[in-house]
Amino acid sequence: MAERLAILAGRGALPGLLARAAPEALFVTFDGVGAEPPKGHAHHLRAAFSQIGALFDGLRAQGVDQVVLAGAMARPTLDPDQFDDRMQALAPRLMAAMTGGDDALLRLVIKVFEEEGFAVLGAHQVAPDLVASEGVLTRAEPTGADFADIERATAILAALAPLDIGQATVVAGGLCLGIETLQGTDALLRFVAATPADLRRQPGGVLVKRPKAGQELRVDMPAIGPDTVKAAAAAGLGGIVVTAGQVMLLERDALLATADEAELFLWAIAP
Amino acid sequence: MAERLAILAGRGALPGLLARAAPEALFVTFDGVGAEPPKGHAHHLRAAFSQIGALFDGLRAQGVDQVVLAGAMARPTLDPDQFDDRMQALAPRLMAAMTGGDDALLRLVIKVFEEEGFAVLGAHQVAPDLVASEGVLTRAEPTGADFADIERATAILAALAPLDIGQATVVAGGLCLGIETLQGTDALLRFVAATPADLRRQPGGVLVKRPKAGQELRVDMPAIGPDTVKAAAAAGLGGIVVTAGQVMLLERDALLATADEAELFLWAIAP
Repeated sequence: MAERLAILAGRGALPGLLARAAPEALFVTFDGVGAEPPKGHAHHLRAAFSQIGALFDGLRAQGVDQVVLAGAMARPTLDPDQFDDRMQALAPRLMAAMTGGDDALLRLVIKVFEEEGFAVLGAHQVAPDLVASEGVLTRAEPTGADFADIERATAILAALAPLDIGQATVVAGGLCLGIETLQGTDALLRFVAATPADLRRQPGGVLVKRPKAGQELRVDMPAIGPDTVKAAAAAGLGGIVVTAGQVMLLERDALLATADEAELFLWAIAP
Repeated sequence: MAERLAILAGRGALPGLLARAAPEALFVTFDGVGAEPPKGHAHHLRAAFSQIGALFDGLRAQGVDQVVLAGAMARPTLDPDQFDDRMQALAPRLMAAMTGGDDALLRLVIKVFEEEGFAVLGAHQVAPDLVASEGVLTRAEPTGADFADIERATAILAALAPLDIGQATVVAGGLCLGIETLQGTDALLRFVAATPADLRRQPGGVLVKRPKAGQELRVDMPAIGPDTVKAAAAAGLGGIVVTAGQVMLLERDALLATADEAELFLWAIAP
């Protein structure tokens, strides 16, 4: 039997990028999520979270044996009266996972699809171009002081990794200007940009971003895009470092053009 | 010979608080710093950083054998033409320390005073009431969920301690909402206050503040004041935890009144 992929689409640009990389894939949208199949994409299935058994049957009927979860799916409002038998049976496990946070919930969703016989792929496995391979991707390159800042940033993230904190940090001239918490990378960069100039010894500095230890890259891969580059430039940074193969580059061409224009470097280092 | 103290006054409320605790102390102000002796304080000496030898002589002439450095002293503009011999001799060491950051500079200043035969005290040794002793100091007390948040916050600060980062962090419902970096506690609390409500699972949370490992408490003790409490309340927190004997409580009465009004707890725990 030939392999067939289904893209379970959340919001954002990612599902469309994957559809372009996999034109034969079945594009699945969910009621209440607000994702639409890209124009011209031939294969579409509508589904509902409350009818998860119907989704499994529908996928199998179309020959799907692989799924990729892509894009943000805010927790939907669920009506128990609408649950099919499969969803009824899953409800206790889902509820328990929900109290454990988004991460626990995503891990359970992966497990459920695997129990149903589907392989769960990461977006980077469907479209390898989405992640950076090792090397400097921009015209600008890291220089002397950057290497020391990158080393310090990496040490900070390593110290926090066992605590499930810190997907990113900014270090400039040896000074840590911010550590990413719940609010995400953009909030971190805005915080850094607001640092009073007299506290910063010198311009420049680096954003280092990489997954937390044990992060489930198939459904929750760190990502940067053109807006990240703009925010890094606005924060006065000299460059961005990601781990190769582990951080998505959204709108890669625009991202690199933005970086070149702002004379920022983007360097993908070995994890 | 009787012990005599000199208060080397920087900006802020601390020098005045120490003068009240030690009315016989010599209150030393420096040209360009902008500190003034408190009204009614009898003993005053004006000094200049460039004439450090004259300061040492002046202190000894007044029988001073102990000094306390109190308040913020922004790095002054120095005119080498004004340096006396002692300052000329110290200049190379001071310059070297300046490139190492504020901490290195403060350590050198302590060392220089000690070399000149002065004992360097911490503000908490002059006015023990400035720091909290162990216990809950407010009407409000920590409850169930707070203890878990405090434990997680403490683990985060401990992980960062070897890296000389993280005098404070905020944890709410198990989620880390921010880690103090260069910008200080107020900036951290403003950042937490700006967290989108849908990211926070629940109201409440704690600020845990304590010295970094190896922090020189005699000249650089963490402090909280009424404004810290207001900022914590504005960030929706339920309480503040400090380490007993290691964190200054500025304007203690106003601080505790503010906390009681906002129904926040303040708990000083064993270091």
